Amino acid sequence: MSVHTKRNYRGISPSEFFYRNRQMAGFSNNAQALFSTIRELVENSLDACEDAGRLPEIEIIINTTQTDVVDVYVADNGTGVPPEHVPESFGRVLYGSKYSSRQRRGTFGLGVTMAILYGQITTNSPVIVETQESHTIGNRFSLYIDVEHNRPIVESVEAFDRGGPGTTVMIRMKGNLKRSQDKLLEYLRLTTVATPYCRLKVTIDDANPSTYGGFSTSLPDPPLVCKPHPRSADVEMLRRMIELNPQRTLRQFLINSFQQIGTKTASSFLQFKNMDPHRHLSTLNRDETAHLSESLRKYSAFKKPESKCLSPIGKAGLQKAVTSLFETQNVSYASVGPLEWDGNPFFIEGALFLTSSRSGSEHPQLLRFANRVPLLYDASDCVFTKVLKRVDWSRYDLGSKTPSILITHLCSTRVPYKAAGKQSIASIPEIELKSKSLYRGLGRTIGRLVKRARSSAREIQRKRELSRSLQLIAKFSAELADSKVPETVRLMESMFEVS
Amino acid sequence: MSVHTKRNYRGISPSEFFYRNRQMAGFSNNAQALFSTIRELVENSLDACEDAGRLPEIEIIINTTQTDVVDVYVADNGTGVPPEHVPESFGRVLYGSKYSSRQRRGTFGLGVTMAILYGQITTNSPVIVETQESHTIGNRFSLYIDVEHNRPIVESVEAFDRGGPGTTVMIRMKGNLKRSQDKLLEYLRLTTVATPYCRLKVTIDDANPSTYGGFSTSLPDPPLVCKPHPRSADVEMLRRMIELNPQRTLRQFLINSFQQIGTKTASSFLQFKNMDPHRHLSTLNRDETAHLSESLRKYSAFKKPESKCLSPIGKAGLQKAVTSLFETQNVSYASVGPLEWDGNPFFIEGALFLTSSRSGSEHPQLLRFANRVPLLYDASDCVFTKVLKRVDWSRYDLGSKTPSILITHLCSTRVPYKAAGKQSIASIPEIELKSKSLYRGLGRTIGRLVKRARSSAREIQRKRELSRSLQLIAKFSAELADSKVPETVRLMESMFEVS
Repeated sequence: MSVHTKRNYRGISPSEFFYRNRQMAGFSNNAQALFSTIRELVENSLDACEDAGRLPEIEIIINTTQTDVVDVYVADNGTGVPPEHVPESFGRVLYGSKYSSRQRRGTFGLGVTMAILYGQITTNSPVIVETQESHTIGNRFSLYIDVEHNRPIVESVEAFDRGGPGTTVMIRMKGNLKRSQDKLLEYLRLTTVATPYCRLKVTIDDANPSTYGGFSTSLPDPPLVCKPHPRSADVEMLRRMIELNPQRTLRQFLINSFQQIGTKTASSFLQFKNMDPHRHLSTLNRDETAHLSESLRKYSAFKKPESKCLSPIGKAGLQKAVTSLFETQNVSYASVGPLEWDGNPFFIEGALFLTSSRSGSEHPQLLRFANRVPLLYDASDCVFTKVLKRVDWSRYDLGSKTPSILITHLCSTRVPYKAAGKQSIASIPEIELKSKSLYRGLGRTIGRLVKRARSSAREIQRKRELSRSLQLIAKFSAELADSKVPETVRLMESMFEVS
Repeated sequence: MSVHTKRNYRGISPSEFFYRNRQMAGFSNNAQALFSTIRELVENSLDACEDAGRLPEIEIIINTTQTDVVDVYVADNGTGVPPEHVPESFGRVLYGSKYSSRQRRGTFGLGVTMAILYGQITTNSPVIVETQESHTIGNRFSLYIDVEHNRPIVESVEAFDRGGPGTTVMIRMKGNLKRSQDKLLEYLRLTTVATPYCRLKVTIDDANPSTYGGFSTSLPDPPLVCKPHPRSADVEMLRRMIELNPQRTLRQFLINSFQQIGTKTASSFLQFKNMDPHRHLSTLNRDETAHLSESLRKYSAFKKPESKCLSPIGKAGLQKAVTSLFETQNVSYASVGPLEWDGNPFFIEGALFLTSSRSGSEHPQLLRFANRVPLLYDASDCVFTKVLKRVDWSRYDLGSKTPSILITHLCSTRVPYKAAGKQSIASIPEIELKSKSLYRGLGRTIGRLVKRARSSAREIQRKRELSRSLQLIAKFSAELADSKVPETVRLMESMFEVS
């Protein structure tokens, strides 16, 4: 038989891949693309401000220039980007400063480049980047992306004084402002829940600016890069670590390369697994490396991961932001962690509170967050939504008659997003299990409040009825005795003082 | 203020990206990874058989070798892979033969490499590929992936006679067979609905083999590569096309480069847009290229896209597979298209039929397909599920009391998957709109059947009651007249013959 169809083999660059499949990165259409552009720029800005150790002050301006064409402008007071890294940071997909093992908002080196790419393919305009580091003169770049080769094309670069450190990015793009505006503002509002110490100023089409945030003026300790947890050591990772230090002995290697392995743990692990602690790494063959990986991943006596690589919002910050934004009083807070999934440290915190806005839903309204970023799309398949639906909220009196809002925040050195658009979290068993117990704990706390409020409402009702009866009795008795009607209010008061 | 956190800028390869984020490609855990491995290998095999013009015969063997370690083996009778392309096809992410504009199961050059990567990082084993083209001697490769640099590492290659053209891939990996087996078999069963002419033979842990498919023995015409539709011409694509033929005039370029543009359409388009047909492409500046793209994308008089790049299952094939697999009779079929989203041709077909298995659901059970591939995960956020929930099925008497199954199949030169794992389709407005009208049409057809069946059930009931009454009347009349009870059956028959 003959070959019907000739096959042409070739490779494509990662920018070509995401150009062809931009819906995977959150750029399905002009509305979602505008949303994702603001989101990616704001997240980068927040990261840069925290790296600089400054309270984030971010200005966002969106201007409609023609039908469906918008100019997006986001400026921050962050670290700025060193001029030699500007072209690749903005003009190359999968290039960034955030591949280390600590909690960051951005992680892929993808989002901002996608926004620039979207601007370029819809309006043929370059991105303008003005950036300045402390104690230096800034620069102004105009650049395009060479999509086929995944590399920047710098159109121009010139010295430029921004008047202070930070970065300003300007993108002209097709964007449906009308359809995305509500979601955009909701995103910014919720960003201040996850980052209560940031201030956002937004101006849309020359209207009066809105400001958000500033609920706190203290910057949290920045998350620190940690050594990997031994349970994250798959063969690939282990091989790379061994290549860096082939002359170390097995024992030295374990102590130097992993967190939660000190001299004692190293010895007991190696003894338990019957391995020679003085063996040189360079002598391990493929099978032995695989065996070492397997042993590290399965050994149950390693301690829980360190938490200094994570940065949860915390009880005080979350409660302050929530009471400011949602006009509510009793906010219950709970957290679990640090724990690990596949060796990646994670921490989950949550807040639950009653709200006056009725939803008719049988469960609380869910607000999802990951690494201080609100997640607004693709809720249905997210692990947090699945768990929400599996909890019987009526047990805690939190059904449709008692509307409530549940906030969940996952912090991790690696958030298992289901797609590059970072909107939905995969169902990792450890995360599923722990968020379920977190939800139930929050439910119990608020459920008790609801019950107490109900019984105190019943008590007030009983007092009112008793008071009315007393008045009637007093009136009838007075009529019978033909005397003056006695005062009952003070009688009531004294009765309830005693009881 | 001082910079708190030093930033390290660097790039990562696409294989590194998907290694770090394997949940995006459908490799979240050992159960899903085994499912995705089989799926990707079977899809590649089906594509290769169709390219060879042969009826697909695919053998799948899964053997548990140790706890949680499985050997996966998939063999086909397809084209085989030319030896010079084997290393990169299997050892490089984003390398493949399927980037052209026609319907294919695989599209990203990602899936099989991810399966190999998963095998490598969980068991440290190479992939074994035996492949042979027609009229040649085959080869046997053993290779690993250099994840950091996204390139293959060939461990060995030797001449090898497979005994016939095709490809066999063997991967050793961590895999949870127990948890994935049901979904795996469901996937293979549904694959034969979408590809009724394939035969699949499956052997799990040396049990008796199961076979699926073979409902048809005719191979459909293979989808052909088409020129792009003018509405797909974004600036990036247009710029590349112009670079290939800078000496053409605008008019020649339009006629030669796009489908649905002949001499007449080219002239009327250029006249309407007030462009000089004899202008040389090389003289267009950036703004003019952007303007041309904008004009092509917005011009409403272009015809619908060609359908020869698409390959729907078709009414006969789908009905045959469904009646064989689901023990049902009346299968209603409908289709819409070819249409386009962002200039990408698409076609949607669907089938609806009643089933005896009760689900208690208010809508039909949905089976989703894209480019002849069953989609089994991440249903909730898929456009097909969203549309399903928006249709009021009770209007067609298809509520919880009349269980039914709805099959939907999207064919497109570019399926807008939400993530690289290809499980869920993004909500593209054109696809949403058309699938809704398709669902309603199918609902009306089956709804009429349900009504007819109900009224005929009522008629049978009425006849039965009338017959019983007639017998009683006959009996009483006979008693009154003291005569023999007359025969009523024939009377009934004659009454209904007349009416």
